[in-house]
Amino acid sequence: MEYEGRLARLQDHLASTDVDALLVSHLPNVRYLCGFTGSAGALLVSGRKAVFFTDGRYTAQAREEVRGARIVIARQPPVTMAAEWLKSNRKKSGARVVGFDSQHLSVAEHSQLAEILRPNVRLRKAPPVVERARMMKDADEIRSLRAAIRLGESLFAVASEAIRPGVAETKVAAEMEYAARRAGAEGMSFDTIIASGVRSALPHGRASTAQIPANGFVVCDFGIILAGYCSDMTRTVHVGKPSEQARGMYAAVREAQEAAINAVRPGVPAGEIDLAARRVLARQGFGRYFTHSTGHGVGLEIHEMPRIAARQTERLVEGMVITIEPGVYVSNIGGVRIEDMVLVTNTGCEVLTETSKELLQI
Amino acid sequence: MEYEGRLARLQDHLASTDVDALLVSHLPNVRYLCGFTGSAGALLVSGRKAVFFTDGRYTAQAREEVRGARIVIARQPPVTMAAEWLKSNRKKSGARVVGFDSQHLSVAEHSQLAEILRPNVRLRKAPPVVERARMMKDADEIRSLRAAIRLGESLFAVASEAIRPGVAETKVAAEMEYAARRAGAEGMSFDTIIASGVRSALPHGRASTAQIPANGFVVCDFGIILAGYCSDMTRTVHVGKPSEQARGMYAAVREAQEAAINAVRPGVPAGEIDLAARRVLARQGFGRYFTHSTGHGVGLEIHEMPRIAARQTERLVEGMVITIEPGVYVSNIGGVRIEDMVLVTNTGCEVLTETSKELLQI
Repeated sequence: MEYEGRLARLQDHLASTDVDALLVSHLPNVRYLCGFTGSAGALLVSGRKAVFFTDGRYTAQAREEVRGARIVIARQPPVTMAAEWLKSNRKKSGARVVGFDSQHLSVAEHSQLAEILRPNVRLRKAPPVVERARMMKDADEIRSLRAAIRLGESLFAVASEAIRPGVAETKVAAEMEYAARRAGAEGMSFDTIIASGVRSALPHGRASTAQIPANGFVVCDFGIILAGYCSDMTRTVHVGKPSEQARGMYAAVREAQEAAINAVRPGVPAGEIDLAARRVLARQGFGRYFTHSTGHGVGLEIHEMPRIAARQTERLVEGMVITIEPGVYVSNIGGVRIEDMVLVTNTGCEVLTETSKELLQI
Repeated sequence: MEYEGRLARLQDHLASTDVDALLVSHLPNVRYLCGFTGSAGALLVSGRKAVFFTDGRYTAQAREEVRGARIVIARQPPVTMAAEWLKSNRKKSGARVVGFDSQHLSVAEHSQLAEILRPNVRLRKAPPVVERARMMKDADEIRSLRAAIRLGESLFAVASEAIRPGVAETKVAAEMEYAARRAGAEGMSFDTIIASGVRSALPHGRASTAQIPANGFVVCDFGIILAGYCSDMTRTVHVGKPSEQARGMYAAVREAQEAAINAVRPGVPAGEIDLAARRVLARQGFGRYFTHSTGHGVGLEIHEMPRIAARQTERLVEGMVITIEPGVYVSNIGGVRIEDMVLVTNTGCEVLTETSKELLQI
């Protein structure tokens, strides 16, 4: 990954603001900028330099991974270290106004920072500049995402094989996660959802000990992490012969998902993609059963900017990678969701998830 | 679980404070108080009532799980919903001062809350009352933790079987996680650490694609989640014949771990437990290689209060469940960590992890 370029672009940006330095405390942002993959770290970026803070557990790892930043190790929370460092290096660094990420700094951390820095350095809420940079994936990231998606997709065959009436949902998840690990995944990008029968009407039905019934939908929503990048996909299969009603539900969701994908191109506000899916479902009488938003960005985090939801004005830009995942959930009956990951290209989009969306009957 | 009792005790406590209601936004606290296991929810607790907020994805699940609280569903972040509800029900609820958890509310969430509630309701930082209640496990929780630990421990045999020279660390982790899932675990409580050879000197060496060398330590630190409760244990094995130096390191860590366990009893400050381990390692010349703290509470979260670390004055209390996990890490050579979970009893402690601590040679 091209860490130095990312850091340099952030420093260029900082030069155009009234903030002297930016405290980056959200770990995916830290990783994006300097490559550190551990669970405790913060990065202080000023116009001229970058300093990375972590604790003694990560001394060796930081030396191996961190690019473009000086490394400071101490036995304190990273954010506290950064504040202490700023205090001791105030004159040298010239930092008087330090930006922080209000979405990811807790009120308690903020109070502590302010306490340490008072009265010479002021804290200021910074806009989510790193998150915004992360929305547009560079070539390295797209390559990583493609590899993650390819590995993730291979688990659908494992799921289809494991899904049988009487089998516990957790057993299906176990087979998928085992296959993921054996194929080299660092882990799953979220708790695997295997929601069968009436549980398929739970949009977030994590695999439970419930047994798959002899007839009904099974929503399979899963993703893996490979070299830090997440995959995310959903396919809904049917155990036994689907009723007319079930076929209708499935066809409606599939049509909605395709309508949303067809709406993806640079310049379109995210809300319009959501609306494209919602319109199809409303027309077919399923409007009120589509209870979540249509999608989200995916990258180092499973949920990142942009949100593909009603009234979102953020416009799509080439290089964004988003999910398109409408669903219909009817309590005590069942649910269907179909989800792909999509790359915004200069003329439209490329659907990165290649698995068939034909209704698979098991 | 006895949710109503927990909620009632919190309400009793609130009555003795100058806060009219407490906004509980940290999900493990929400789960502890009302049973909700989903990924988006907040609980507003006043002296007389409790209201739970979630979004449409969790309508069915909230109805099934939530105890002792009225359920409100809306299409907003739960904390925003709670604020809007407080605003509309201000007169009826009589809430003028609302406590919030400064450790878990972001600066951005806090600003939004304040904006909605201004000027009639004031926000006040509340001490971590729910976290403090959670430190002492009740009988149901101890039962759940014992079951989680039992399942977690069964994975050490899987690890010992999988660890062979030339095998990738991730392959070992894969076998363990598969066995965990098949035995009914909801997942791992943290990224499995399999750190072999020189990587064993990384205190947080998550399983990598590195191959296990023909001679050296392998630190195995792992845990599972069962019915919401976490297990956590570490054993360090040796591939090939250990040198005198390796045996010495192992023996020192084992002695330090036992010294710390022997120090555990009600009334003892957590810092003394840490010191007990540190003293043994210092005496044997390993003091500077023990770069992290001795332990932490475990329950619904893998890391919770109390911290077992230098200078911690929190006194141990019967019912606390903590880890005791000293380690020694020598760069470019290797590392050893041994970790058990321990229940503070009325006279001392019970070591809940039963796996042998003899040095296993593979």
